[in-house]
Amino acid sequence: MKQYAGQYKNELLTNVIPFWLKHSKDEEQGGFLTCLDRFGNVFDTDKFIWLQGREVWLFSMLYNEVDKRPEWLDMALHGARFLEKYGSDAEGNFYFSLNRQGQPLVQPYNIFSDCFAAMGFGALYKAMPDMRYHDLAKYTFENIVRRRDNPKGKYSKAYPGTRNLKNFALPMILCNLSLELEHILGSETVDKFIPEVLHEVMDVFYHKGEGLILENVELDGSFSDTFEGRLLNPGHAIEAMWFIMDLAVRLGDKKLAERATEIALRTLEHGWDKQYGGIFYFMDIKGRPVQQLEWDQKLWWVHLETLVCLAKGYQITGNEACKTWFEKVHEYTWSHFRDPEYMEWFGYLDRRGDVLLPLKGGKWKGCFHVPRALFQVWKTLETPVVVPVAQPAL
Amino acid sequence: MKQYAGQYKNELLTNVIPFWLKHSKDEEQGGFLTCLDRFGNVFDTDKFIWLQGREVWLFSMLYNEVDKRPEWLDMALHGARFLEKYGSDAEGNFYFSLNRQGQPLVQPYNIFSDCFAAMGFGALYKAMPDMRYHDLAKYTFENIVRRRDNPKGKYSKAYPGTRNLKNFALPMILCNLSLELEHILGSETVDKFIPEVLHEVMDVFYHKGEGLILENVELDGSFSDTFEGRLLNPGHAIEAMWFIMDLAVRLGDKKLAERATEIALRTLEHGWDKQYGGIFYFMDIKGRPVQQLEWDQKLWWVHLETLVCLAKGYQITGNEACKTWFEKVHEYTWSHFRDPEYMEWFGYLDRRGDVLLPLKGGKWKGCFHVPRALFQVWKTLETPVVVPVAQPAL
Repeated sequence: MKQYAGQYKNELLTNVIPFWLKHSKDEEQGGFLTCLDRFGNVFDTDKFIWLQGREVWLFSMLYNEVDKRPEWLDMALHGARFLEKYGSDAEGNFYFSLNRQGQPLVQPYNIFSDCFAAMGFGALYKAMPDMRYHDLAKYTFENIVRRRDNPKGKYSKAYPGTRNLKNFALPMILCNLSLELEHILGSETVDKFIPEVLHEVMDVFYHKGEGLILENVELDGSFSDTFEGRLLNPGHAIEAMWFIMDLAVRLGDKKLAERATEIALRTLEHGWDKQYGGIFYFMDIKGRPVQQLEWDQKLWWVHLETLVCLAKGYQITGNEACKTWFEKVHEYTWSHFRDPEYMEWFGYLDRRGDVLLPLKGGKWKGCFHVPRALFQVWKTLETPVVVPVAQPAL
Repeated sequence: MKQYAGQYKNELLTNVIPFWLKHSKDEEQGGFLTCLDRFGNVFDTDKFIWLQGREVWLFSMLYNEVDKRPEWLDMALHGARFLEKYGSDAEGNFYFSLNRQGQPLVQPYNIFSDCFAAMGFGALYKAMPDMRYHDLAKYTFENIVRRRDNPKGKYSKAYPGTRNLKNFALPMILCNLSLELEHILGSETVDKFIPEVLHEVMDVFYHKGEGLILENVELDGSFSDTFEGRLLNPGHAIEAMWFIMDLAVRLGDKKLAERATEIALRTLEHGWDKQYGGIFYFMDIKGRPVQQLEWDQKLWWVHLETLVCLAKGYQITGNEACKTWFEKVHEYTWSHFRDPEYMEWFGYLDRRGDVLLPLKGGKWKGCFHVPRALFQVWKTLETPVVVPVAQPAL
């Protein structure tokens, strides 16, 4: 497995990061332009807070973890200035999107905007210890925790009381975010926080019958036999499993890492398209038709997060199935998503693996999953196997 | 063209209507079950107001226009009772969806719920002159008109002031709805209403440079070079053109019918997939990547509404291109959407024309576009050519 490390590192540093450095910095109005076509040309100028926060995080992380290159810190600071100035309303809730000039377009209905803003400011504070970034990250995290039982607030269209479901995405992101912000929140806060999100992800959203993670469950954790309740998002579940593995390493809990590996492998087996290869975007746990018309498409982040998960699963648990699957998913991912002619990777393929949208960045794809996964696989595989000491489960 | 009339009539009466009569009536809880798999089995029990209203309309329309069959009136009344009892809030705004028992699931954020409820009650009032249906249709129509400048109300996520776009769907539906409700609103009201919606559809949303209809424009009618502003929905535009043709017949305005035919043909030429056949779901007027991942899919309603439009265009204007295109779209539609083994038609195909979701009804597909189009093509083609007398354009 170690042989792959160099390939991932090289792709990150020579093919992916240069694309964003060259094309995404908006010198005129600040922040990042993320709607970039195959060649890097800007095809739309709207600014989506998810992607602004994520690009701040990515360049800060590279500066913190790879190399102190001034152009990386400069990119992170450039994005953070825009995000701080225009990103949130007076109460510190982050908008979903802005126009190029920074005027709000879509209201703060989406709590993941706040998650990625906090993540960006948190990583930047590590690179540049200015208290403004510390405070922004801390306040935003606390605001997320405050809002988490009703994240959409007044923008929710659900009629209260009839069907109260909770969604997997927030506890999943909080697994990762709490570790990302440990230098700001303090270990004690994170220690208290971990068991709760761990329980949500590994018990509440886990469907015992099928051994898979559900996207939505009733507030009491029971199964809801509805479109939302039957929904599976294999990429989400697999990505969450490597967040759990990171927590397992921190906790020294090998059993937890093994359980996360098993769930990831089961999800991958279930989500793999036996006919055309690749991992489906959405499925129904009972095999019924889903509402998502894009259910059969192959998305970049699903495959890249799977590679991270398999690399970590292999390094931590030594499970050989992780290696076999890593090779299979690696082959599919590099031959389908990587653009052989121009920099960066495609994001959206149809079921058969043909390019569906010839873009390198858009409303949802920015400078995040491709470089983060390349970094994670590189670092995971180049370091010796980490087997945490087994400890009593939480 | 007349030879097709029998085929459409036969399909409507022996293959499509029996499916809904047999499978969609919820004897237990009232209203209609629309999430039906290939064989007619219920795979989900949520009730979507669009589809409840549309099925009331369809069975009422059949009773009014085809034959006074008691089981058709019974279906319409069955749906209307549920819709009246559970469909709206205290102010008469229709919810988006209910659970099987009729409890509200999704708030009244979507004004098309009201449009299809009004359409259903209006047609039922023709079949069964009970003033409650008259009043429900009238009140709901007036409520739509009242809400139309801010249809999403407090559920809108757009930040006010930054980018104020208006959407094509509402004026388009109002073209059709005002004619559908003429027996309730009175000809004078409709006469006053028509020029306004006609102007919106044919001038405001019409992009002069490309000769195509846009989905969204600035409030002053100007082009917005944004994701929303560049969006084309060929099926929408073509469907609207047959609504316009109906208005042209009512107005005796042949020029208007000719212009609608030209726009429809241009849209079809633009939206036709030269590689795999069929009409794309979404496009960008500048050819840029769209946000809709389902952009390249082939949807039943797009193709069926196109057949109606071409049949009407041919009958009213005699334009030979309508005939050529009708034959081409007919061949694609019948060979791809019609299920050769079981009743009713498929709704969702991938770009290549393979079935994407093996359902006959769902959240958006109900007892509406297939039977309405079969009825419209049948009736349009069996009657002699109607060429309205040219009158000065409005």
